[in-house]
Amino acid sequence: MTSMDDFWAVIPAGGAGTRLWPMSRRTSPKFLHDLTGSGQSLLRATWERLSPLAAERVLVVTGSAHAEAVRAQLPMLPRDAVVTEPSPRDSMPAIGLAAAILERRDPEAVLGSFAADHVITEVAAFHAAVRQAVVLARRGELVTIGVEPTHAATGFGYIREGDPLGVVGAESGRRVREFVEKPDAATARRYVDSGEFRWNAGMFVVGATTLLELLAQTHPDLTDNLRIIASDPRRMTDLWPTLPKVAIDHAVAEPAAAAGRVAVVRASFGWNDIGDFASLAGILAESDRAPRLRVIAGEDDVVSIDSTGLVAADSGRVVAVVGLEDIVVIDTADALLVTTQERAQDVKRVVEELQQRGRADLT
Amino acid sequence: MTSMDDFWAVIPAGGAGTRLWPMSRRTSPKFLHDLTGSGQSLLRATWERLSPLAAERVLVVTGSAHAEAVRAQLPMLPRDAVVTEPSPRDSMPAIGLAAAILERRDPEAVLGSFAADHVITEVAAFHAAVRQAVVLARRGELVTIGVEPTHAATGFGYIREGDPLGVVGAESGRRVREFVEKPDAATARRYVDSGEFRWNAGMFVVGATTLLELLAQTHPDLTDNLRIIASDPRRMTDLWPTLPKVAIDHAVAEPAAAAGRVAVVRASFGWNDIGDFASLAGILAESDRAPRLRVIAGEDDVVSIDSTGLVAADSGRVVAVVGLEDIVVIDTADALLVTTQERAQDVKRVVEELQQRGRADLT
Repeated sequence: MTSMDDFWAVIPAGGAGTRLWPMSRRTSPKFLHDLTGSGQSLLRATWERLSPLAAERVLVVTGSAHAEAVRAQLPMLPRDAVVTEPSPRDSMPAIGLAAAILERRDPEAVLGSFAADHVITEVAAFHAAVRQAVVLARRGELVTIGVEPTHAATGFGYIREGDPLGVVGAESGRRVREFVEKPDAATARRYVDSGEFRWNAGMFVVGATTLLELLAQTHPDLTDNLRIIASDPRRMTDLWPTLPKVAIDHAVAEPAAAAGRVAVVRASFGWNDIGDFASLAGILAESDRAPRLRVIAGEDDVVSIDSTGLVAADSGRVVAVVGLEDIVVIDTADALLVTTQERAQDVKRVVEELQQRGRADLT
Repeated sequence: MTSMDDFWAVIPAGGAGTRLWPMSRRTSPKFLHDLTGSGQSLLRATWERLSPLAAERVLVVTGSAHAEAVRAQLPMLPRDAVVTEPSPRDSMPAIGLAAAILERRDPEAVLGSFAADHVITEVAAFHAAVRQAVVLARRGELVTIGVEPTHAATGFGYIREGDPLGVVGAESGRRVREFVEKPDAATARRYVDSGEFRWNAGMFVVGATTLLELLAQTHPDLTDNLRIIASDPRRMTDLWPTLPKVAIDHAVAEPAAAAGRVAVVRASFGWNDIGDFASLAGILAESDRAPRLRVIAGEDDVVSIDSTGLVAADSGRVVAVVGLEDIVVIDTADALLVTTQERAQDVKRVVEELQQRGRADLT
C-alpha cells in the first residue's frame, strides 16, 4: 500500500437530527450520542474509523456550541484540529474552510470528508474504498464513494455511474454521469434494478486545492472568503455571517459531474446514516434478525411483554411495553416519544410543533 | 318518596388495580385518583353520589395504609366512619364487619355496598334503583342491582333473572335465579341476546342483620368473630388475621340465590368498573365518539401527531405520540407504560414481572 501522508480526514459534525428527537437535540446532536449502544458516541466511532488512515491528520468542523463537547470526546486532538463555525452555513462553507486551512499546511493535501453521525460496520472495506478514492483524488478527480444499495431506499440521493476509469490502485473507480435526488419508491426500485446506481453517502475525497478550484467556478466570492479566513482566523467574525448557506452537492458535486470531473469508488461496507429511529432499528437488527424489543439504553429498566421494536430507557424510570409491534419508545429526562418504525420520519413534526408552542428548549 | 333514614352506604375501598398500573399502585390505589379527569377522585365521586341517599350515614372500609388518604379526601366524615382493616381479607369480612357495626347502631339498618372505584354517569337513575332495592331489602331480601348490558362483555359476571316480584315501590324487582361467572365471548353473546341476563356490578343492598344471618348459614365462625370485633374493636388485632379471605359473592350471594333469597333491581345508569385502560378509554369516549387522543393528565404537555387513544402525562415531561392508533401511554414520575387498548388486560403482567425482579416498590 502506498503512503497516506497527504490524506486528511475532515469530519463535519453538525445537524440537529430532528428525526431522532428526543435523543438528538440542537443542544446535543446525535453525533455526540452512543445511539447504537456500541459503547462510544458516533463522533468517537467516526474518529476511530478514520485514524488508521489519517493518523494525526484530522479536522473536525463543528458549531461553536458543540466545540467543548467535541474536544471532551476527542481529547487526543490538538486544539487547532477543532474548527468552529459561529453559525451553521450548510456543508460547503464547512468543508471549504477545511480545504482552505489544509492547502496552507500542504499544497498537495487530499481531504476526505465523512459525516460524524454515520455508522459503518465493515471498516476494512471502508478503508480500502478510501485508499482507492485517494489514488483518484491525487489525479485531480473529485471522488465520491458509492455505496451498493441493499434495498430501494427513498431516503438517500443516488449516483448514476458511467464507465470504469481503469486506474491502477483504484480498480473500483468509475466516471459519475450524474447525481440524482431522493427518488420516489417506484423510481428507487428502477434505479436499484438497473444496476447503474449507487447510494450517495455524502462522502467526498478530493485535493484541497482541487476542491477550492471547483468551488471558484460556481462561487468565486465564497472561495475567496474561505481562503481569507484560513489565512487570518480573526476574519471569521465579520466574514462568516456573510457566507451563503449552500450544500457541497449543489455548489460543487453536481456541476463538476456535469463537467465530467467526478469519479465514484464502488463500495459495500454496511453504511447507515441513522436518519431516523427506523434506520437505527435496522442497524440493531442486522446481527440478530429475531423480532424482539431492542433496548439501546437502560436495559434493566425495561419490561417487555409480547413486544418488538426499539426502546431507550434513558431517564432512570421503569419503561413497560405491552403487546406492541415495531414500537419506538424513547424516554429521556424531560421528554418522551412514542411512535412506530413506519412513522419514524414524522418525528420531525414533533420538533416543529414544540417550536411553535414556545417549547424550543426541548428541541 | 319514603324516608331513607334506615339506609347506610358502605363503601369498600380496596384493591390494588394492577391493570391500571402505573396510575394505580398498592400504595396509591385507583379509588384515590381522578382517573376520568372529572376533577375529583373516584372515592370522592362515590361519596358525592351516595350522600343524597345516605346523608351522614356512610361507612368506608379500607386498608390501614389508606386510612389517612381516605380521611383527607372525605374530611366531612366523622372519625368512626372510616373502618380500617389491618390486612386485606376480600369483600366478605369487610362488608360483614360494616354490617356488624351497623346492626349495633340500628337493628333495622339497611346497608348498600358500593365499590369506591366505579363510575356511574346517570346519578338519578342510580338513586332510583337504590331506592327500589331498599324497599326489597326491608322485606328481608338480599338485593343486587343488575345493570342492563350494553355489549357482550367478558369482563363481568352476570345475573340470571327470574320472575318479577310485583312489589309496590320496587317495580323493577325480580327474583335472581343464579349468578354466573365471567363468560367467554360466545357465552356472553348468548346471555345478552337472551334478554335474561344483567351485569353483576357487585352492588348489594340488604338488611345488616339479614346479611349476617345469611352469612351465618355458610360461615358461622366468621359471623361470630365479626360481631365480636364490632362490639369490642380491640379484638381486631387478634381476630382479623384469623378471618378467611372470601368474597361476598361466594360466601352469601350465590348460596342465597340458590335458596331463592336474592332479588335484583333492573337498572341502567352508565356503569363502568374501570377495570383497565380500555374501559377507561371507553368512558372518555362516551360523550364524544370521535377517534382522537384523549388526555387524562397534563394536556399542555402532550403533542399528538395522527394518533388516537389515551394519554396521561403525569410527570411534567413532554409526551409526544406519533402515528399510533388506540395507544395507551401512561407517564408517571417513576414509571412509564405503553400499550394498546386491546392488550390493556395484560398490564397486570407488568406488575407481576416487577415483583419478580424485586421492584415491588414500583407496584
